[in-house]
Amino acid sequence: GARGLCSKAPNDGLDRVRTLLRLCADRYFISPGESNAELFRRGWSCIYGPLGLELRRNLLQQWWHSVTGSRVRVFGVNTPSSSLERGAGGARVVESEHFQQILDRSELSREQLIQELNRLLLSSPSVRTSLLQGALEQFVPSLEMVSKKLPFGLAETGLCFQPSDVSGCFVEVTQTSLVWFCSPRTSSQWLDHWVRHRLKWWRKFALSPSDFSSIEVPENELEKTESRGVKILYNFPWGLESLETLWCRGDTDLLQTYKGVRTKWQSRGGQKSVPHVVSVSGNMDLGMLAFLSNSLQELRGEDGKKKLQQRRVLKLHPVLAPVKVAVDIGKGATVELRQVCEGLLQEFLEAKISAWPGYLETQPTSLQHLNAKYDEMGVLFTVLISENTLESGLLQVRNRDTTIRETMHVSEIRNFLSKYISAADKFS
Amino acid sequence: GARGLCSKAPNDGLDRVRTLLRLCADRYFISPGESNAELFRRGWSCIYGPLGLELRRNLLQQWWHSVTGSRVRVFGVNTPSSSLERGAGGARVVESEHFQQILDRSELSREQLIQELNRLLLSSPSVRTSLLQGALEQFVPSLEMVSKKLPFGLAETGLCFQPSDVSGCFVEVTQTSLVWFCSPRTSSQWLDHWVRHRLKWWRKFALSPSDFSSIEVPENELEKTESRGVKILYNFPWGLESLETLWCRGDTDLLQTYKGVRTKWQSRGGQKSVPHVVSVSGNMDLGMLAFLSNSLQELRGEDGKKKLQQRRVLKLHPVLAPVKVAVDIGKGATVELRQVCEGLLQEFLEAKISAWPGYLETQPTSLQHLNAKYDEMGVLFTVLISENTLESGLLQVRNRDTTIRETMHVSEIRNFLSKYISAADKFS
Repeated sequence: GARGLCSKAPNDGLDRVRTLLRLCADRYFISPGESNAELFRRGWSCIYGPLGLELRRNLLQQWWHSVTGSRVRVFGVNTPSSSLERGAGGARVVESEHFQQILDRSELSREQLIQELNRLLLSSPSVRTSLLQGALEQFVPSLEMVSKKLPFGLAETGLCFQPSDVSGCFVEVTQTSLVWFCSPRTSSQWLDHWVRHRLKWWRKFALSPSDFSSIEVPENELEKTESRGVKILYNFPWGLESLETLWCRGDTDLLQTYKGVRTKWQSRGGQKSVPHVVSVSGNMDLGMLAFLSNSLQELRGEDGKKKLQQRRVLKLHPVLAPVKVAVDIGKGATVELRQVCEGLLQEFLEAKISAWPGYLETQPTSLQHLNAKYDEMGVLFTVLISENTLESGLLQVRNRDTTIRETMHVSEIRNFLSKYISAADKFS
Repeated sequence: GARGLCSKAPNDGLDRVRTLLRLCADRYFISPGESNAELFRRGWSCIYGPLGLELRRNLLQQWWHSVTGSRVRVFGVNTPSSSLERGAGGARVVESEHFQQILDRSELSREQLIQELNRLLLSSPSVRTSLLQGALEQFVPSLEMVSKKLPFGLAETGLCFQPSDVSGCFVEVTQTSLVWFCSPRTSSQWLDHWVRHRLKWWRKFALSPSDFSSIEVPENELEKTESRGVKILYNFPWGLESLETLWCRGDTDLLQTYKGVRTKWQSRGGQKSVPHVVSVSGNMDLGMLAFLSNSLQELRGEDGKKKLQQRRVLKLHPVLAPVKVAVDIGKGATVELRQVCEGLLQEFLEAKISAWPGYLETQPTSLQHLNAKYDEMGVLFTVLISENTLESGLLQVRNRDTTIRETMHVSEIRNFLSKYISAADKFS
């Protein structure tokens, strides 16, 4: 085995990125292809394979649970990604055929053509670039839930369309958003609260927490309506990038959204002041890349034959790991062994333990290759079914992090995994 | 209490729809407003409040679990909702400013203007109308996971943009999609398999299962490439609507997607035949409305004073119910009582039991009104904290379906709820 002496392999940043992207494509995190890998590297929604999908789902679930469960006063909302009622500008969903029909009308003069096209554009729904506006519009409808008392927050996750530098095109990102409404004098304290909360969350799942940091936005970079801003950064091999941004936005957004109708938000006790908004907005596609990058360990181990062997392990936090257990077969796959695998897999899925049907894939040449594959997938445990299982009911379980193999009875494995996962969830 | 004689109130269809929509807006399923209610009624994504959000999430989770867990050979994928590579036509995301810049170029002749606009349109990403194409494109990259063996499936849920009859506009729907690849001779059997599977799933969560049915699409309504089609219908008060559609699509889609390069999908054993596609595609916004409509019970009960009283209960399946427990206070809310509520709520959220902070809302005038409110929200259990709780640690728990109140110690309630929910999940 490759368990001998291990040392972190020296490796420059770009090599590391290339390695990570190749691994993500080879191991079903993202769909293969250069343009897809480039979308992914830039923190945009790309085509995810089963593992990437599951990782992002876990990440979004943890974010949701942490934000809506941390304070009792956060409520979820869900708004469509396009809307007829948003102002001019931005990106719009235009029906090609209608567009073409106008262009084909030869009786229209140049001026009339422009007029018709403008009309079409303005009547087409515009797509959102962030989740902020949607939450602002839900401020008044939400007041009843909290007896008009501040502070409270609205949380949402969803797709947003953002302009990219590539030929003026729009790209998709999976955003998380908390819009927090509070009294003017507490907004700066609340910003600090949420910065601590968010940074702690990112670090909780990290292998090297110090790669996540926060930085105050310099005053000269603030927009007019913002009084403070803080960014949560991740130290990627190619430099720092912002994963989540927090702003003290003052009362301007609410005043604009409700066009100055102040009475609507008069909170209980008759205070006249308009609530201030603290916004917390993150990019979970980029967040995914951060955790993947953070958890990739490249180890140089000596194998039995003293040959240098590069070992790569995605040490994703147990809560985030997209596959908790892989079910596979040693040499000599037979119909009976496959049936045991299928039964076990079904058992795991029923217990909501994310399991990988490794026995469906082409057999790797050796146990070492099999382990290498699952380490690169970040699979927590590998269960190996063999001839011996048919006779004695015993199987082998390998732990990703310790690389230790244990023998266990087939009837014990589900409970063992359930307990391991819920402990990891509880004490993370 | 309103527990006396109950009978189903006679009510015509339209009244029932109006009642349901009002209830959904009043009880935080959807955001108030007529245009929002209209989107919702038509089965399109609208602005959801916290309860609607949670209901849809539960529904999608159950769909996912049922489809990916039912057979070991279903894998998840996730593709962006817009793409630069899709063919001409359909809806496209156009950047308004670029559009405007072209219209403003006065040096362009009418012909040149049309040319430039066409170029802009074709370079803008097109948005998907269904999840089918994305899955077809992942067929070849997925072959490795299954050792090129049929059958297998790709599952996805996500937003799609669909043309509506309203002024040629696009609306959003939350689709679920399973694209199943199988050998030509088995495709009709697989269609039958998935029809049974899907109908069983819908009925499992229904209060009156017979409102869900399936119907074979008549041969003369099939598209050229489709050899069979089946719809899963729900009997809404205004008539039947299709929730999920299943098609035997033949090999045309795959041949088109891969432009005839047959070698790519040669499965093991060297079979030459191109796999056939069975597609299963549902609208979960409409699905949500179906379950809400199905679970609304209007009961006419006699209260203590012999006054006729209309009682409305959303008897959503325990697995789907967006709120499992509401925490509220009887008369005389004090700081101490609120603290007990907050502690209890925190405990529920940590145990991932979806809880509602009812004590934050304006107090209803009576216990009867409180119960009526939670019945309309479909809340499974209501926990009532009172002065007595401070002294003895005892609280009152009311069951939505039996309307029975029990006294329980504050230390027992979490376990009681956890067990109830996991039992409902297991035996549903």
